[in-house]
Amino acid sequence: MGPGPSEVPPSVLRIMSAPTLGHLDPEFLQVMDEIADMLRVIFGTKNRLTMPMSGTGSAGMETLFVNLLQPGARVLIGVNGVFGTRMAEVARRCGAEVITAETEWGRVFSPEDLAAKTRGQRFDVIALVHAETSTGAAQPLEGMRAVADTCGALLLTDCVTSLGGMPVELDHYGVDAAYSGTQKCLSCPPGLAPVSLSARAEAVMAKRNQPVQSWYLDLGLIAKYWGGERAYHHTAPVNQLYGLHEALRLVLEEGLEARYARHAENGQALERGLQTLGLSLWVEVEHRLTQLTSVRLPKGFDDMRGRHFLLENFGIEVGGGLGPMAGQVWRIGLMGHGSQRSNVELCLRGVAASMAEQGLPVPKMEVL
Amino acid sequence: MGPGPSEVPPSVLRIMSAPTLGHLDPEFLQVMDEIADMLRVIFGTKNRLTMPMSGTGSAGMETLFVNLLQPGARVLIGVNGVFGTRMAEVARRCGAEVITAETEWGRVFSPEDLAAKTRGQRFDVIALVHAETSTGAAQPLEGMRAVADTCGALLLTDCVTSLGGMPVELDHYGVDAAYSGTQKCLSCPPGLAPVSLSARAEAVMAKRNQPVQSWYLDLGLIAKYWGGERAYHHTAPVNQLYGLHEALRLVLEEGLEARYARHAENGQALERGLQTLGLSLWVEVEHRLTQLTSVRLPKGFDDMRGRHFLLENFGIEVGGGLGPMAGQVWRIGLMGHGSQRSNVELCLRGVAASMAEQGLPVPKMEVL
Repeated sequence: MGPGPSEVPPSVLRIMSAPTLGHLDPEFLQVMDEIADMLRVIFGTKNRLTMPMSGTGSAGMETLFVNLLQPGARVLIGVNGVFGTRMAEVARRCGAEVITAETEWGRVFSPEDLAAKTRGQRFDVIALVHAETSTGAAQPLEGMRAVADTCGALLLTDCVTSLGGMPVELDHYGVDAAYSGTQKCLSCPPGLAPVSLSARAEAVMAKRNQPVQSWYLDLGLIAKYWGGERAYHHTAPVNQLYGLHEALRLVLEEGLEARYARHAENGQALERGLQTLGLSLWVEVEHRLTQLTSVRLPKGFDDMRGRHFLLENFGIEVGGGLGPMAGQVWRIGLMGHGSQRSNVELCLRGVAASMAEQGLPVPKMEVL
Repeated sequence: MGPGPSEVPPSVLRIMSAPTLGHLDPEFLQVMDEIADMLRVIFGTKNRLTMPMSGTGSAGMETLFVNLLQPGARVLIGVNGVFGTRMAEVARRCGAEVITAETEWGRVFSPEDLAAKTRGQRFDVIALVHAETSTGAAQPLEGMRAVADTCGALLLTDCVTSLGGMPVELDHYGVDAAYSGTQKCLSCPPGLAPVSLSARAEAVMAKRNQPVQSWYLDLGLIAKYWGGERAYHHTAPVNQLYGLHEALRLVLEEGLEARYARHAENGQALERGLQTLGLSLWVEVEHRLTQLTSVRLPKGFDDMRGRHFLLENFGIEVGGGLGPMAGQVWRIGLMGHGSQRSNVELCLRGVAASMAEQGLPVPKMEVL
């Protein structure tokens, strides 16, 4: 119940034990095609260039920047947590000029915030974190396409913690490039990074005059393996892909709307329970992720002692705070398969017990 | 029985279905430590910086070049197959000046060949492929350290197909940087890239004046996660690492010498059998890998029809030729768990049957 990896359903774990097929075996090629098709549905896109990269979510982030940027490119990045900070670092390593829009960790950006930064200048990419795993904030995407259009930029989003847990809808919001990970709301073990790029993004890549600085993440080469030609690039992580195939199948079997509703319901139940325990939440209610909740630790509460207690006595792992939030919050995930009413209740019991163990006053359990 | 992924033992597949622990869970940190220790034994090294990267073998290749090179670095690369060619491409994308030593695919380099290229000039890295997966040639490493020393270079080797199937012995040969994959002689599904770097290589990295161009593969950051600090970098591919842990345990349980002897014995049995069938081998006997054999297709034999026949009727996948060897050879792997006498016999029967199916003369099976 931390900020990922999330709990993995038994059938996903089981299928990862299937015999390893060759990466060019006809049966395996069909698995790949089905993965790409299912990802398109969950990303809410018709983008041809949609597939999982052979690395974790951070490799997905790097994939987009190395393919879309050349030295001297100008990038505007919204920084309100660890992953905006990381995007800025990765973009700089591509030789880009990085301008950041910044706000407090846990807050989000309005289109006006970004427009105030772009001021009509040309940008190559505007990048935002859709669901900030380090804070629990949900970044609205409405209106961001228009800002990108005023400066000729591609719109890029980090969907690591959003994909499969809340609507992503790339085409609806006009997102050109998105990356995700498998270990959050898709409930697949970590190791793959789904990405999707629009025709506009493909056109930008086609106009490059320098090779992509990463051979391993070069979409021009990888698309030939995932596309019709099946040209060997690298040996695909076959068993991981079995797991992703089953995880995506489960997402679609449940149905996107039902799945998002489940995440919202359980997340809100957790929020209410924490508040009943007298705790307050880091993010304002209108921008709160329901799959990941940052709760402020009460005064006098020892963070590490509490996390250790929770792991030892309840078998629950939660995440600590990062950066300016270190020591001030716990990050509790209810992601994918882990978003279950029973987990909400177990977690609330565990939090209450850990407060009691540290001598803090705790409302009677009946109130929960 | 292609050039990888190889057959995976049941216990390796099974452990990949274990519940996904958090990447900072104390139990998982112990798994990581044991993986690093076992890799050191199999790499034949005491190198501190030894661990699996979170990508396939090609990510391991890229890891070494992006961390060891800066723009303007000079690199000498031995090119005698696909993977030397790929190393040259990756090094160029790091902004390096790449000089290649070239020989026919299937042949190898002597120290004198390389010395003739370096001619006392300064180089930053000399890179060789220890076991060329595209040809089946084994590159001797004896004497290469001395050549590297004459030009102040680090010695780098591709051990993707050698690790776990033949002696690698990095410290003995004075190799400074090596990468491998999990899906060849370690018999673990693809998805991880073991790397090992010497103190000399670490000193080169410490003197960098520019950041590593890849954030995802930045060893300075990753070493803090794999080392004592356990600083979060990216979410480790937990279940893949379970598989690698078990695969390495099986390698050491068998014993390195016994394992290498098994590979040699089965590889030689396959060679003899193919020759008995009237076929000839691409690589000269003294530089032949026993874990991967390139056999010339007989005159008039249809490559794709034969491979399809073998897959359909014997359940055997073999690799075709690449580059200048396309259509001319089959590449037959006897790697790791797949290096079994029964596989040798099944494969020889299959090759004989596929020749017969195409109307070619085949010696009586008793001869095999």
